[in-house]
Amino acid sequence: GPAPFFILGPCALESESFAWEMARSIDEIAKRTGINYLFKASYDKANRTSVKSFRGPGVEEGCRILGEIGKELGVPVTTDVHSPQDAEIAAEHIDLLQIPAFLCRQTDLLEAAAKTGRAVNVKKGQFLAPWDTVNIADKLRSFECRNFLITERGTTFGYNNLVADMRSLYWMRKEGLPVIFDATHSVQRPGGLGGTTGGDGELAPVLARAAIATGIDGIFMETHSDPANALSDGPNQIPLEFLEDLLVRLVAIHHAAHGA
Amino acid sequence: GPAPFFILGPCALESESFAWEMARSIDEIAKRTGINYLFKASYDKANRTSVKSFRGPGVEEGCRILGEIGKELGVPVTTDVHSPQDAEIAAEHIDLLQIPAFLCRQTDLLEAAAKTGRAVNVKKGQFLAPWDTVNIADKLRSFECRNFLITERGTTFGYNNLVADMRSLYWMRKEGLPVIFDATHSVQRPGGLGGTTGGDGELAPVLARAAIATGIDGIFMETHSDPANALSDGPNQIPLEFLEDLLVRLVAIHHAAHGA
Amino acid sequence: GPAPFFILGPCALESESFAWEMARSIDEIAKRTGINYLFKASYDKANRTSVKSFRGPGVEEGCRILGEIGKELGVPVTTDVHSPQDAEIAAEHIDLLQIPAFLCRQTDLLEAAAKTGRAVNVKKGQFLAPWDTVNIADKLRSFECRNFLITERGTTFGYNNLVADMRSLYWMRKEGLPVIFDATHSVQRPGGLGGTTGGDGELAPVLARAAIATGIDGIFMETHSDPANALSDGPNQIPLEFLEDLLVRLVAIHHAAHGA
Amino acid sequence: GPAPFFILGPCALESESFAWEMARSIDEIAKRTGINYLFKASYDKANRTSVKSFRGPGVEEGCRILGEIGKELGVPVTTDVHSPQDAEIAAEHIDLLQIPAFLCRQTDLLEAAAKTGRAVNVKKGQFLAPWDTVNIADKLRSFECRNFLITERGTTFGYNNLVADMRSLYWMRKEGLPVIFDATHSVQRPGGLGGTTGGDGELAPVLARAAIATGIDGIFMETHSDPANALSDGPNQIPLEFLEDLLVRLVAIHHAAHGA
Repeated sequence: GPAPFFILGPCALESESFAWEMARSIDEIAKRTGINYLFKASYDKANRTSVKSFRGPGVEEGCRILGEIGKELGVPVTTDVHSPQDAEIAAEHIDLLQIPAFLCRQTDLLEAAAKTGRAVNVKKGQFLAPWDTVNIADKLRSFECRNFLITERGTTFGYNNLVADMRSLYWMRKEGLPVIFDATHSVQRPGGLGGTTGGDGELAPVLARAAIATGIDGIFMETHSDPANALSDGPNQIPLEFLEDLLVRLVAIHHAAHGA
Repeated sequence: GPAPFFILGPCALESESFAWEMARSIDEIAKRTGINYLFKASYDKANRTSVKSFRGPGVEEGCRILGEIGKELGVPVTTDVHSPQDAEIAAEHIDLLQIPAFLCRQTDLLEAAAKTGRAVNVKKGQFLAPWDTVNIADKLRSFECRNFLITERGTTFGYNNLVADMRSLYWMRKEGLPVIFDATHSVQRPGGLGGTTGGDGELAPVLARAAIATGIDGIFMETHSDPANALSDGPNQIPLEFLEDLLVRLVAIHHAAHGA
Repeated sequence: GPAPFFILGPCALESESFAWEMARSIDEIAKRTGINYLFKASYDKANRTSVKSFRGPGVEEGCRILGEIGKELGVPVTTDVHSPQDAEIAAEHIDLLQIPAFLCRQTDLLEAAAKTGRAVNVKKGQFLAPWDTVNIADKLRSFECRNFLITERGTTFGYNNLVADMRSLYWMRKEGLPVIFDATHSVQRPGGLGGTTGGDGELAPVLARAAIATGIDGIFMETHSDPANALSDGPNQIPLEFLEDLLVRLVAIHHAAHGA
Repeated sequence: GPAPFFILGPCALESESFAWEMARSIDEIAKRTGINYLFKASYDKANRTSVKSFRGPGVEEGCRILGEIGKELGVPVTTDVHSPQDAEIAAEHIDLLQIPAFLCRQTDLLEAAAKTGRAVNVKKGQFLAPWDTVNIADKLRSFECRNFLITERGTTFGYNNLVADMRSLYWMRKEGLPVIFDATHSVQRPGGLGGTTGGDGELAPVLARAAIATGIDGIFMETHSDPANALSDGPNQIPLEFLEDLLVRLVAIHHAAHGA
């Protein structure tokens, strides 16, 4: 199979300088390991558990920053959009528009994203069966979107828990859909810490290895130079210092799984 | 305990005359059975499984119709809103703004609904633990919303299935939240029919009886004079002809459960 | 519908005198409230979480005690059997042989219980779909068992949690099976307390009310004069002092649900 | 990490000659690929969905056959035991006694298996949380069993479905337990075919690859020279003709995951 690609970056655009630092670090790692990647960061955490949580710089400012990073480093950039209006604004600077999992069935948002002409990456809702992503793909195609991805990020499994069903990756690819695995959100324990969303950060590399071994198109992983002090999703992000080793292993597993 | 109240109406505003017919029929039944109720119908089915499905008359037209029905019959009306803009428009005519389950964590939508000064009814997401609705209540309170309800409508249980955990009703009430049980959406089999969302309509009365016996504040049930030809959620809606008998039993169970 | 019946008693045969005390107390309550019931207690807790837990007096001694209680009070008795040999021994004294949930698919145990000629009550495994109890019924019938019950006691729901799906009661009755709801084990939180199995005892009456409102044949509830000091399943058993009030409400709900 | 080992063989001892054929074929593949393995087959399918299903030659005959195969080929053998009596009989010939998933909490069976002095492999119940296998390990240790394995084989996920939670493998190893992944039973769809247990055989290699990439001790896979005509679990077994290629990939993934 063709080499997998990666979507890498911090959860949130904590500040402009932070975004640049993270992007430059990731880009160096990518060059050394020879991987293809997109740079990702969120401008707005629109569904935080608590109203007191950090949200971000907003769509205009956030997408400007991402656009400049992409241009300077020569990498495509991606971010999540939360309304039809945001999709339109973001599309000016953003190569791949990401639809959040809770919103994956909002027809108007899918239509707005599709109509920008940009590629679209739909996070599969925690409430959705793998085969029901075909309906999402059909919606996107009906809005003339030709270039899209589906990202698995775990399924509701009892309360305050998600399970990453590795069969889902296989089933969705069998439907002809390009499939990404989101290793850092799949290990979330939603609501598990009271007012914030907890997780099991040490598990993200474990699930990333499992997912790539099934044979998929790419891996989404959030990474942070200092997860303990991240303004959102701290416990789940891959510490930047471990990223290179993990990427090397993931590529090796990919080749081993394909019998290469 | 005080008598339970009901939220009753067809899933969708299929047409103006249909809405009036349904409202008048329900109102007669309510008068005969002595129950308190709100009239409900949706102006837009914004997250249909398929892009080809019926959506509705839209927010302006839909809320005008609902407002006129409410004024004429002297009953409060409710509908679901899907964006901050819609919330503002709907609030002109609508007494109780309903937040859809998939959107229950979208801070901007909660804020917009709260800021209208209207009462707010949040459907609990299929991915949310009962105790995590406290975070939603806290968000609403922080936006000065004093009058809100939480509606249980089932939790993701494997693929293409929801389970209505009766403990959830107890736990949420114990947190001091007013709790409604949505009997018709709790029996949905999401995605179970390929391009539409199937369900088990004969089960809605069963779950309504179970839920009222736990001791809650009210029941939400969609009803239709001809479910087989409904433009959305057909298989789950209570046939109008069975509504009166069901309401009588629910009220009797409520009193029996309270030892009255 | 015909009046529901009840299976009542302490989880374990903690001692001979304790069993007699509990049985006499329950019998008085049954007489006052006019309900039909079977007396239940376990002679061996064969699958305790920890090897250090209390297990009971064993099959010979336990069934002798239960048989004497049944004869003296004129009530049928029931207990759970864990092996073909135990089934044969127990059948001498026991009217209704209960098959534990984990063992509900062990063909040899079902056969041995059936061959005794006694009635059989199979607890539905936490891993079993409602419609798959039909296979158990078919096994029992093929072994000439004509008189059997299926007891719902919750389904695995994520880790360390069970959910009582009220639809299950409806589906199994629709298959023509007599259905009991086990209100005290359905609220277990398996493994939730480390070395013992925890639960939510205040929830058992809530689920009993919900289940009887769906329209079933009976309710199984463990009860104890001092749950806090029970030798097993303490937190889930109904305090004996609350039993009478609960039974009265359950019978009233049953009649209300049937429109009587 | 040390090379993983494998537990390989057909689901059932369909006949003596079939067992020998399968064992010789697997042994040749193992020699060519350089893997370590145990030969597995069941003498009794004790919890078949339907009473009409094939069960096997029984414990005496079955274990004699397995013992002779093990001696001749110089490989350890394993089979599942269903009662304390069976454990004792089997231990004469069998190197690794397997405890079935439904029976993983039956103290008497664990004790009997442990007391034989043989190694014990406990299949984790479909209803058990990963961390609760520690209680099983404690039971085994208290019965002087020093050499045991825990096998993950999927967790109940809604009705008629299992999910293989890859985090479970990590969590159990972190508890210091040796962990095997059962790739062929994890893809079962319990009860999914009415009177038999269906599955998704093409998924077994996918899950085996994912599991080995997480870093575990071994893989359990049933294999059959003609799955379509197997007397039990046909749809899930790995066709013998694909076994060698799969083993080679699994070993390569293991090394890639360990950064070797």
